[in-house]
Amino acid sequence: MRIVVALGGNALLKRGEPMTAEQQRNNVRHAAKSLAELIAAGHQIIITHGNGPQVGLLALQAAAGPPDGVHPLDLLGAQTEGMIGYLIEQELGNLLPDDAMIATLLTQVRVDARDPAFRNPTKPIGATVDELTAKHTTAYRGWTFAPEGQGWRRVVPSPAPLDILELRVIAMLVERGVVVICAGGGGIPVVTQKDGSLIGVEAVIDKDRASGLLADRLGADALLLLTDVDAVQVGFGEPDARAIARIGADVLNPDDFAKGSMGPKVEAARCFAGSKGRIAAIGRLEDAIAILAGKAGTMVVSGDEPVSFRLPHKKLAFGDKSPGEPGPQG
Amino acid sequence: MRIVVALGGNALLKRGEPMTAEQQRNNVRHAAKSLAELIAAGHQIIITHGNGPQVGLLALQAAAGPPDGVHPLDLLGAQTEGMIGYLIEQELGNLLPDDAMIATLLTQVRVDARDPAFRNPTKPIGATVDELTAKHTTAYRGWTFAPEGQGWRRVVPSPAPLDILELRVIAMLVERGVVVICAGGGGIPVVTQKDGSLIGVEAVIDKDRASGLLADRLGADALLLLTDVDAVQVGFGEPDARAIARIGADVLNPDDFAKGSMGPKVEAARCFAGSKGRIAAIGRLEDAIAILAGKAGTMVVSGDEPVSFRLPHKKLAFGDKSPGEPGPQG
Repeated sequence: MRIVVALGGNALLKRGEPMTAEQQRNNVRHAAKSLAELIAAGHQIIITHGNGPQVGLLALQAAAGPPDGVHPLDLLGAQTEGMIGYLIEQELGNLLPDDAMIATLLTQVRVDARDPAFRNPTKPIGATVDELTAKHTTAYRGWTFAPEGQGWRRVVPSPAPLDILELRVIAMLVERGVVVICAGGGGIPVVTQKDGSLIGVEAVIDKDRASGLLADRLGADALLLLTDVDAVQVGFGEPDARAIARIGADVLNPDDFAKGSMGPKVEAARCFAGSKGRIAAIGRLEDAIAILAGKAGTMVVSGDEPVSFRLPHKKLAFGDKSPGEPGPQG
Repeated sequence: MRIVVALGGNALLKRGEPMTAEQQRNNVRHAAKSLAELIAAGHQIIITHGNGPQVGLLALQAAAGPPDGVHPLDLLGAQTEGMIGYLIEQELGNLLPDDAMIATLLTQVRVDARDPAFRNPTKPIGATVDELTAKHTTAYRGWTFAPEGQGWRRVVPSPAPLDILELRVIAMLVERGVVVICAGGGGIPVVTQKDGSLIGVEAVIDKDRASGLLADRLGADALLLLTDVDAVQVGFGEPDARAIARIGADVLNPDDFAKGSMGPKVEAARCFAGSKGRIAAIGRLEDAIAILAGKAGTMVVSGDEPVSFRLPHKKLAFGDKSPGEPGPQG
């Protein structure tokens, strides 16, 4: 299968983990194992990734440095495509045969300058801070913060992705067997100006939506959204939460899920799987192979197939589960 | 002709210019005009670029931000490949026909872990600072500084480039008419570990040497090193300085030129043009077409052709010169 695999920001850097180079490299090394398994299983994969924690850190660093170095979000996004793409390419390359070809491609994604998202920032980036820090930073830098969990996080506009500028090059490489890493952080948001030229804008595109667009345009068979939760759950966080095993795109309602995190994944999965013969799946990074086999995670298929649940969700002890053996909830 | 065009850090950001996004974009826009002229003239170009000022700034920003975000130079180099590559791709794309394909490729370059450069840092990065700042930063962060001009600049190891890891992908794209931007900042330096895996190292490869290697491996006809000086000069800075118009690689001695700036360019040009039928040229960004025609800059050809000089170097008033009309010294 041709699969677009999206690595969630949370799969690359878990909440609360320090954003050191070592931590990020370790996490990427872990993710690379799953990616290598997909390739070894004969799949043609295109890899995308989030950049929320990283782009937030770079913005903070830039603000703390010399005043002329405060770069806008399109430049920072480009920086994260370089940095995260490099780590993925290097760690995945270390696991693949010597003759495997990998390419990390800088990716620009066109958005509409009149997208209402520019007036309503919703995409959380960077670390969670306390209320006082959020208020100070709002006053001092004009950044917008929104409550998340126990604290506050900076939010930025997240316009809808419309076109992937480097699509022809990506397709050319994929056709020739190159493993392509692209659309990192959802791609660098650009708009078309009156004279037809492109210019970057201050936003961060949702990487799941961009990945869905990429999968559609590349004629992929599957969209695989990997994160740090087992599956899409109905009633997430409640004692009677139930994990969805399989559901038809037509009966899946993205409004039932958290706007900041699971919502965009569900929406991207629903959109992509809405077309016949295509599947989208959401689940844990380590379960990539099991998810495709329907043994873990949540699979969204085309049509109005009613929802089926996994056995009641149960907290697993470490070591209870390995990929392909999804354990009690499988 | 197939030409590897290297944009000097100084051509992208002149000494003393503020490192704002706007300034960098304006400079890149200016450089893109020269690149577009080369493409319009029918040449197949591969673009590389320096990152000295930018990687120095990112290191400073990282040091000023949260302590866990102090990333090593390989990650920072990858960030600059993303950021600068993005600006070049976008601005060049705005000048090319709609059906032109451009790709910015993350590039890793293998170096030898035992390269003596690791014990003798020489590559200047970042801004020029005063002696007190240099001393403080050395004590506080362990960075090394070396005198440059009226001040001091941080210096880092600059090992010799041995292999370009993404070479096959670059060649594939070039063969198919894609304008490739790669090996930014000389490429991300990586070494092979005992188990055969790759890992990044703290260094910044000289982009002229990396560009020469790339040109050689791609079978390019020409290596064009663009910067902010008219030509290679004998007696640079002296009243009787003379600009070299043309010289054989075998009679060119890199030791005659400044180690930090012109030396590496002359060495890269001499190495590449040392093989029969290939040319290397050094000159001003705006003169790209004129340089290739032998009407501006310095051309290095194979063999022992004796040096020929341009008319005595004369300071030009702004507006005296336009590309293709190299003026008094042409």
